[in-house]
Amino acid sequence: MKKKIMECVPNFSEGRDKAKMEKIIAPFAGRQGVTMLDCQADPDHNRMVVTVVGEPQALLEAVIKSVDAAVACIDLRQHQGQHPRMGAVDVVPFIPLRNMSMTEAIDFSREAAARIANELGLPVFLYEESATRPERRNLASIRRGQFEGMAAKIKEPEWRPDFGPAEIHPSAGVTAVGARMPLIAFNVNLQTADLSIADAIARKVRESSGGLPCCKAIGVELAEQGVVQVSMNMTDYTRTGLAEVSEAIRREAARHGVEVAGSEIVGLAPMAALAETAAHALGLRGFSMAQVLESRLLE
Amino acid sequence: MKKKIMECVPNFSEGRDKAKMEKIIAPFAGRQGVTMLDCQADPDHNRMVVTVVGEPQALLEAVIKSVDAAVACIDLRQHQGQHPRMGAVDVVPFIPLRNMSMTEAIDFSREAAARIANELGLPVFLYEESATRPERRNLASIRRGQFEGMAAKIKEPEWRPDFGPAEIHPSAGVTAVGARMPLIAFNVNLQTADLSIADAIARKVRESSGGLPCCKAIGVELAEQGVVQVSMNMTDYTRTGLAEVSEAIRREAARHGVEVAGSEIVGLAPMAALAETAAHALGLRGFSMAQVLESRLLE
Repeated sequence: MKKKIMECVPNFSEGRDKAKMEKIIAPFAGRQGVTMLDCQADPDHNRMVVTVVGEPQALLEAVIKSVDAAVACIDLRQHQGQHPRMGAVDVVPFIPLRNMSMTEAIDFSREAAARIANELGLPVFLYEESATRPERRNLASIRRGQFEGMAAKIKEPEWRPDFGPAEIHPSAGVTAVGARMPLIAFNVNLQTADLSIADAIARKVRESSGGLPCCKAIGVELAEQGVVQVSMNMTDYTRTGLAEVSEAIRREAARHGVEVAGSEIVGLAPMAALAETAAHALGLRGFSMAQVLESRLLE
Repeated sequence: MKKKIMECVPNFSEGRDKAKMEKIIAPFAGRQGVTMLDCQADPDHNRMVVTVVGEPQALLEAVIKSVDAAVACIDLRQHQGQHPRMGAVDVVPFIPLRNMSMTEAIDFSREAAARIANELGLPVFLYEESATRPERRNLASIRRGQFEGMAAKIKEPEWRPDFGPAEIHPSAGVTAVGARMPLIAFNVNLQTADLSIADAIARKVRESSGGLPCCKAIGVELAEQGVVQVSMNMTDYTRTGLAEVSEAIRREAARHGVEVAGSEIVGLAPMAALAETAAHALGLRGFSMAQVLESRLLE
């Protein structure tokens, strides 16, 4: 049987106190079947984003322990930072990486949510693919009002949490747990300083204004470089690939008489997203991920 | 320390007798640190090509045991098959896959060659990157004359083997051992039945007639599909990438008024070759293999 690998990217509302951050990530260290790939703490946001992968059940156990540690040491009543937040453990996304389906990842996310509620006493909202109602798919809708507004919001019948009590945890607030596809942060720079062009192209390509599925995009000014950027989150590369959105932006830019000045992937991207882009560029037929040498090594 | 991974693709002169083939690949099974990824036996060629990867020293030990088994059960005096061959173990290439340099792979290939000569009594030629003279880089030059001609050839001073006796092993002939980059079999189909166009483009892109470095190419007719193909072996994707050769062929085809009808990768390709193609297609800046999620998983 092929080994299932799941990813989890929990966001913790602590990005300043090293001792606390150490305690929160400790459950990911030296645990059989679990590997922490990345850990980014931002003092301005006062937030830490951890990327951890592993065998699904081992990963789930480690995540629960980490959430426990965060609840014990973070007090949202004292928390200040630029990033919106509603809980000590703000959001816990589970991502099916290898040899597992989205359905399985949803099942794991529900198990995690139930245990976080039952064992740690936190109210939990299921979001994204795990959401129980359409209006809970979007994390921003759940988080609206933030920690300070959540005490009242959670009493409203339509914001009753999916698991746990219908009142916030006094110091740790509430948490969102869900399954989603891996997210790719992909930016395309345009050879112009005119932000309105980046804005117009972002509107054209993003799903919310009728563009490409699973593409979120905004225009951004890179003042130091004297160029503008279409800054994107691709939320499901199997629905819209990097090659496809890249070509769409190039086409739109040409209509504005502007050239693409290069692009970048920020952070990690799954191998399949890059292989699919290569297959598209080369016009490959009958290509399968099993042809990637390292793919076999991972089994 | 990052784990080094080496690949070996030994070619054995037995592609018909299942019992013998089982004996030859047995050393690759259930051995700690070694994984057989592929095994292709061709009865017409009477040849078996095995792809095995692993921790370098463990891989080397397994390969020596497998060569030992092949020498014990293959008798070249009885061997018939379409593929040219000069030994029971015709050729043993070592490929640096992860976290190791070509220099290290050359060192391992020399150690393997010395042990095959000393422990098993086979004369061994070093070839490709491990070659001790320019005329021994090319396997075809070493193999010219095949098993039947080797008894005399090996007595010539310029064909004295690098390791072992200057006479062939009576039943197992001689063996070539060396280090090389991973090889990618890449074919591009052209929307025409005119073989002379595929031939002309192959001549244009292959290194031997002044084309792209590390590209071997021939024109091939795919009679059933009614098209022709530029059939290639890319012997070092870090010198000429798939995107580059694909674009060169598209350009040349356009000059002949012909369209590209798709392409294919036959067998395995390393992740980096595909990621590099994607990076080229997207115009990525500052991209590194460390951004490939699975790349971290492999460490």
